[in-house]
Amino acid sequence: MGQKPSIPKGTRDFHPEEVLKRSYIFNTIEEVFKRYGYAPIQTPSMENLNTLTGKYGEEGDRLLFKVLNNGDFLSKADDALLNAKDSNKVLRQISKRGLRYDLTVPFARYVVMNQHRINFPFKRYQIQPVWRADRPQKGRYQEFYQCDADVVGSDSLMYEAELMQIFDEVFSHLGIDVTIVINNRKILAGIAELCDASDKLVGITVAIDKIHKIGKEKVRLEIANQGVAPDKIDKLFEVLDCKNLDELSKHMQDVPVGLEGIEELKKFHTYADQIPKKNVLKFDVSLARGLGYYTGCIFEVMSNDVAIGSIAGGGRYDNLTGVFGLPNVSGVGISFGAARIFDVMEELNNYPEGIGAVLDVLLLATDEESHLRSFKFLQSLRDAGVKADLYPMPSKIQKQMKYADKLKVPRVIIIGSQELESGQLSMKNMQTGDQEKLTLDEIIKTILPS
Amino acid sequence: MGQKPSIPKGTRDFHPEEVLKRSYIFNTIEEVFKRYGYAPIQTPSMENLNTLTGKYGEEGDRLLFKVLNNGDFLSKADDALLNAKDSNKVLRQISKRGLRYDLTVPFARYVVMNQHRINFPFKRYQIQPVWRADRPQKGRYQEFYQCDADVVGSDSLMYEAELMQIFDEVFSHLGIDVTIVINNRKILAGIAELCDASDKLVGITVAIDKIHKIGKEKVRLEIANQGVAPDKIDKLFEVLDCKNLDELSKHMQDVPVGLEGIEELKKFHTYADQIPKKNVLKFDVSLARGLGYYTGCIFEVMSNDVAIGSIAGGGRYDNLTGVFGLPNVSGVGISFGAARIFDVMEELNNYPEGIGAVLDVLLLATDEESHLRSFKFLQSLRDAGVKADLYPMPSKIQKQMKYADKLKVPRVIIIGSQELESGQLSMKNMQTGDQEKLTLDEIIKTILPS
Repeated sequence: MGQKPSIPKGTRDFHPEEVLKRSYIFNTIEEVFKRYGYAPIQTPSMENLNTLTGKYGEEGDRLLFKVLNNGDFLSKADDALLNAKDSNKVLRQISKRGLRYDLTVPFARYVVMNQHRINFPFKRYQIQPVWRADRPQKGRYQEFYQCDADVVGSDSLMYEAELMQIFDEVFSHLGIDVTIVINNRKILAGIAELCDASDKLVGITVAIDKIHKIGKEKVRLEIANQGVAPDKIDKLFEVLDCKNLDELSKHMQDVPVGLEGIEELKKFHTYADQIPKKNVLKFDVSLARGLGYYTGCIFEVMSNDVAIGSIAGGGRYDNLTGVFGLPNVSGVGISFGAARIFDVMEELNNYPEGIGAVLDVLLLATDEESHLRSFKFLQSLRDAGVKADLYPMPSKIQKQMKYADKLKVPRVIIIGSQELESGQLSMKNMQTGDQEKLTLDEIIKTILPS
Repeated sequence: MGQKPSIPKGTRDFHPEEVLKRSYIFNTIEEVFKRYGYAPIQTPSMENLNTLTGKYGEEGDRLLFKVLNNGDFLSKADDALLNAKDSNKVLRQISKRGLRYDLTVPFARYVVMNQHRINFPFKRYQIQPVWRADRPQKGRYQEFYQCDADVVGSDSLMYEAELMQIFDEVFSHLGIDVTIVINNRKILAGIAELCDASDKLVGITVAIDKIHKIGKEKVRLEIANQGVAPDKIDKLFEVLDCKNLDELSKHMQDVPVGLEGIEELKKFHTYADQIPKKNVLKFDVSLARGLGYYTGCIFEVMSNDVAIGSIAGGGRYDNLTGVFGLPNVSGVGISFGAARIFDVMEELNNYPEGIGAVLDVLLLATDEESHLRSFKFLQSLRDAGVKADLYPMPSKIQKQMKYADKLKVPRVIIIGSQELESGQLSMKNMQTGDQEKLTLDEIIKTILPS
């Protein structure tokens, strides 16, 4: 009898301890976003497919989850296409909506639709799930959260400094030591120009992005395959080896776009250097970031202790809203990779003590009268702010203790006729086994030291 | 150039003030759930269609959003069915997943899948969006949040009392005066039996449920149409008029199921009456609730000041997990209607002051040097816990004040060379226009009185 239930591949349930730990991470990020003046928005899970399609490349279009039109969806489909089983063309006739693939495109769509009510520069954050039909595998899910903060409508480099500051603060709150790496896309453009390969900027950027993963020799090969001459590639690696902006400036003397990138980083530093940092900020000419839309400063954040790739990143983009009809809006944004941060936190076990505890205390009553009175005690505890519960009926203490054990509750209070008479309740610490006789007020003070 | 963007009908963006207000409501509910010992879980947005289908009636099946299989989805569809444009049958071949329609069925699915790790009684809460392809209309959306708390694995009526207490506490925190109405499905079963119409219980329940909407006469007609004799309907209305349990008991002398319902309500009261309530708790024999799966106590919560229907409800169900192969698990749960609560809050304007304020203070700098130094002040304010921001560049004060006005920021601090020299910053209250000269420390103390 009954079907055996399951959940779709690539999705997961979150059990209480996982929800509590994830909430701790999200709340830490959100609290910093708020203190830095970012305003929350939320967009619908479903967007029109024409908002999403074509924004994430061919691969992205394939990975979009499409929602079937409701009702008799086939009635409007073309007979010939159905006969030919042309999934691509039939798709447009039976599906108008897709699930959100990231938070960036919906944000751009939001800005354009609300441009007349928005007060620019507009600082927003957004913490919501996104969906991608990636092949399910360990650590990769089809539904996951993104945590983004962006400023649009200003090209002030103060914001780059502020967002770097947010990285620094969030990760120091979480107890994760990180290195914040910074570069500027204009410097990469300058390097491409130095190699007479400005037309190959995207290919070169993609290759350079892999330098720490696949090594110099393979990057050299990849760039050579794009038709860049060997002496130019030598030049490229010479520039990539630059350790600071002054060194780099010498190479860029005759490359205005490169100098502009250097100037932007200097301006960034005039702000960033005002504030002491808890983590390392590092300039790296070879930082490239894969995403196509960045045009200025770019960031990536790496854990110093767990080798897991970047756990946060971001950058400036000059024309994200252009595709929706609003050109020339400069923006800069960052994104926290919640899943990877969760993995790092698990490995470092960096959570505050008792993070997974649902209860502060569980009451156990031994008889009917005590149970009723305990329900009243329970309310007093809850009114005082204690997370408290009562086993649902009077029964043998052994049975109730077994429940308490499994629940991993830190304390129990045993209540019987004797305790009711004396007003002294017996509280047991489940870890140490210590037992104390206390009044209800004393119990509250013990559990919630002010 | 560029497409004009839009969002799907029946969906909406939430602007910052709306997100802040909604978060306030969700956080109030969540904080109470936690204090009462409920543990959070989260389930995937997508469930397998065979988990969802058949659980919400025919209408529900129609309103499920179905997600198209990825890739060449038509390749596995049957040629003949495609030719016949049989949407219903083709559906199963091109879609395996649907969007969550409520939180109850996914919770039942979760309990069954995790029955061996769960410590019963299991108290869980869940606050997540659900999706329904309802025809979009004013105040009805295709994506909305549900806030549910349930206990499964115990038939103790203590939990009914606790959940009633949660209603009382949440709505008093929100400042909404409510009436909590209670009844028991077994009493309705008893009434059906009194009318020799036990086989028509569902139809009678549905009819009675509408009594406050459509009036007695129309309910009478509806029940008569189901074949109940006129004298039995007279009897039914006589019983529905009972104002308390003792009166009702007399009618139910020979109806065991009815007496059982009365006993359950009495047991509920032995717990509930221990605790003073801030709102009215009322017994109403005509409370029926539409949902089919309730078997014991049922609740509904109505605002006393805003006529909007029920804003929360719930009840006991004896076999929610049976359909997934785990019979005989009794549960009781409640659900808060976030959208209606939001509407009531808007009408009563019950939010804490400054709920929509993104910033505590905005800094305005008049020259380059002041701007850089202000960036440092800004950090000190943020470090102290102040939600602070700085206009992104030095510019004319009029321009910056215009930005501050539009942002509805409560205070601004104007910083120029004079202020830098004296260390006395000039803070302006944007509502009163009052201006004060203060040090940074004094500003922090003014904004954040401890």
